[in-house]
Amino acid sequence: MSLDAVLRRIDEDLPAATDRLLHLLRIPSISTDPAYRSDCDRAADWLVDDLRSIGIDATKRPTAGHPMVVGHGSDAGRHLLFYGHYDVQPVDPLNLWERDPFDPAVEETPAGQVIRGRGASDDKGQLMTFVEACRAWRAVQGSLPARVSFFLEGEEESGSPSLVPFLEANRDELGADLCLICDTGMFDRETPAITTMLRGLLGEELILTGPSRDLHSGAYGGIAVNPIRALARIIASLHDDQGRVTVPGFYDGVAEVPDEVQAQWRALGFDAERFLGEVGLTTPAGETGRDPLHTIWARPTCELNGILGGYTGDGFKTVLPSEARAKISFRLVGQQDPLKIRQSFRAMVQDMLPSDISVEFHDHGASPASHMDISDPAFEKARRALSDEWPKDAAFIGAGGSIPIAGYFKTILGVDSMLIGFAQEDNAIHSPNEKYDLESFHKGIRSWARILDALAR
Amino acid sequence: MSLDAVLRRIDEDLPAATDRLLHLLRIPSISTDPAYRSDCDRAADWLVDDLRSIGIDATKRPTAGHPMVVGHGSDAGRHLLFYGHYDVQPVDPLNLWERDPFDPAVEETPAGQVIRGRGASDDKGQLMTFVEACRAWRAVQGSLPARVSFFLEGEEESGSPSLVPFLEANRDELGADLCLICDTGMFDRETPAITTMLRGLLGEELILTGPSRDLHSGAYGGIAVNPIRALARIIASLHDDQGRVTVPGFYDGVAEVPDEVQAQWRALGFDAERFLGEVGLTTPAGETGRDPLHTIWARPTCELNGILGGYTGDGFKTVLPSEARAKISFRLVGQQDPLKIRQSFRAMVQDMLPSDISVEFHDHGASPASHMDISDPAFEKARRALSDEWPKDAAFIGAGGSIPIAGYFKTILGVDSMLIGFAQEDNAIHSPNEKYDLESFHKGIRSWARILDALAR
Repeated sequence: MSLDAVLRRIDEDLPAATDRLLHLLRIPSISTDPAYRSDCDRAADWLVDDLRSIGIDATKRPTAGHPMVVGHGSDAGRHLLFYGHYDVQPVDPLNLWERDPFDPAVEETPAGQVIRGRGASDDKGQLMTFVEACRAWRAVQGSLPARVSFFLEGEEESGSPSLVPFLEANRDELGADLCLICDTGMFDRETPAITTMLRGLLGEELILTGPSRDLHSGAYGGIAVNPIRALARIIASLHDDQGRVTVPGFYDGVAEVPDEVQAQWRALGFDAERFLGEVGLTTPAGETGRDPLHTIWARPTCELNGILGGYTGDGFKTVLPSEARAKISFRLVGQQDPLKIRQSFRAMVQDMLPSDISVEFHDHGASPASHMDISDPAFEKARRALSDEWPKDAAFIGAGGSIPIAGYFKTILGVDSMLIGFAQEDNAIHSPNEKYDLESFHKGIRSWARILDALAR
Repeated sequence: MSLDAVLRRIDEDLPAATDRLLHLLRIPSISTDPAYRSDCDRAADWLVDDLRSIGIDATKRPTAGHPMVVGHGSDAGRHLLFYGHYDVQPVDPLNLWERDPFDPAVEETPAGQVIRGRGASDDKGQLMTFVEACRAWRAVQGSLPARVSFFLEGEEESGSPSLVPFLEANRDELGADLCLICDTGMFDRETPAITTMLRGLLGEELILTGPSRDLHSGAYGGIAVNPIRALARIIASLHDDQGRVTVPGFYDGVAEVPDEVQAQWRALGFDAERFLGEVGLTTPAGETGRDPLHTIWARPTCELNGILGGYTGDGFKTVLPSEARAKISFRLVGQQDPLKIRQSFRAMVQDMLPSDISVEFHDHGASPASHMDISDPAFEKARRALSDEWPKDAAFIGAGGSIPIAGYFKTILGVDSMLIGFAQEDNAIHSPNEKYDLESFHKGIRSWARILDALAR
């Protein structure tokens, strides 16, 4: 049977596949920082070359930002569009990394071998699981069991500014029967998952300005307004005592999860204590009285991502700063309207400004939550294929993160998405010492080989 | 009359005196930043050489931090100890400077000539007014009208860690009849001032830690505690709706200013609208119902000097930070006890911490407020000498800033201090584009020449 031969080939080729991934990880393709523009370009070139080596007609496609990589296979069968992203998060604070984030390696750990480096999990390691599965099919069978196209983005970690225009301009070329997205995680180490609910994301930055310049706190302390104090007051008011977000209208469109779905989730036996314990925490924060898994998958949030104002270097400086700024994001669920929430948030901030403080808002993206239609039989086929590879049966789950691409594939291309990934929650994505388990990589490749086979039937 | 000859000499020597100051300003003696350690040393050497050139037996004296400069004149008369500091504030944000902060120059402005550069006012320009007055006396008269010693510090902008041990170790050598301190300002452009009340200063830094590493706000948003949010809540609670500081016991030892002193202050005609207008503000902040001048001189405050947490670079990063930190200072008046307030503040912060957030405190100095005894006739002599130089009579005033040295001179050396300076409130000390009016420098030198004469009588 050809699937067995493909799986054997994957096992034999694992060292070479790992080397290819390490090569891609060495390219510091940080999309949000303009200093790494040429590196993003280099990562795109590397992928074009690699896709061509497995018979995909791939090209680098310019955008106003970082390039897209688009490629088409010539095989017959169901048309699948695979999506992944080759850009990575910044690496600060660099001093907390135990190795150069762009000098990746396979490390031995008590929990097994891991591939360590920025992007090892998010999303270079994940996207390469699919590429390697195709490579193995091709090596063994001479062709893929389906017609596969690739669409690899370089701006996912910086709000995907070029994505919508590109999809709109290339609607016909990118149309497919189904999208496959590899940027999510397993439910746990033994239980693979197909993510069918994703939270949306609204990103806002606010810059409060008070005095026209930094002031001496002796000369002006007491009578000059302080933008850090004003900012703290705004931030402190964004949640009530029950942990609910206070932005007016915020909960419009947030439906309760049906009882039967909640029951399924409870059956997964999510261990909040262990989940939090791995990052040094003991107590679920968030809304009072909500189940922790439910909080992550099905409740909206308001999060503080960054804050800066005044003197923050070594020592002390008795300055009253002219400016203070914060980056704030909202995770959205159900039918919450990101643009209405943005408007309401900004109005709330304006209302809270004391005399002599002005505010400037920067827009860092807005995408609604996504829900997949799991009545498509492809979902059940993929779930069974995944279950064949892993110790436990695959589950349909929610996810706290946001992958707006799924929403755009639906609204712009008219195509449903299936989100399957092999990340573990301790992968430290977006953090120092990011890693991808070698097992995730290996069995991830095998999983895709099985799914390609299943979807072709 | 020799004073007239000294004043003429000062007028003739002004270009050379300005050149000497520019030379000192070129040395980037930022005391808080270890990168500038050798520059602090260089500034001390420069001052030793300059003092020797006017007959002062000066030496550089090592400390655990930056060196002190101590020098003694051999003339007869009342023993005066002059204090100034040769270290300067950091220069960030550098992009807001219109010239290199350490490439100073005399610039023409609509309001007259100014000496522009870091330290031009605080405190190199000010300390050189006294040095130049001595130089002129010596050039004309061959001697000074009093016995003058110098004590110049290099750590004033970084909390003066070596000051108390140095004073204690050199109590006999530094003893004098009166200290003269040049680190304060005029009341306004026409009215010179002797500062007789100084606020104290308590500096605190708090570092809140939540998760053991930065987290992805998708995976953890909602159930992981956020240290920025906890910090904002603490900061927002430090003031009540009336602008009063809420730290328990904070107002213990804060006396109301006597009615007659308040009446004197009102007679000065402080123009709060203009004072705030110069820095882009319109409305006095601070405690409801307090007179603005009174707020600056005689009321304690709590100020936010810096805040930092999470991702603060370009673009956006959906991170839940492990850590958030703030630098907070308290200006103190009357008999407020800095150490009791520190203890109370820290206990208040501890009480407000949510589950899973820990705090670390860093001590950035603590000094009580100072009050001078103006019944010493030297104060009235100096006030008359100043009044002879400037368009309006000199005033005894308060000051919002803190110069703990005056308190230490009293408690360790047993010597009273007289604080006289020529800074204007638009000098942008501690800010970009710091300047010192050439008039402040010129008439400041002349003022000290007159005061030396008056105190000798």
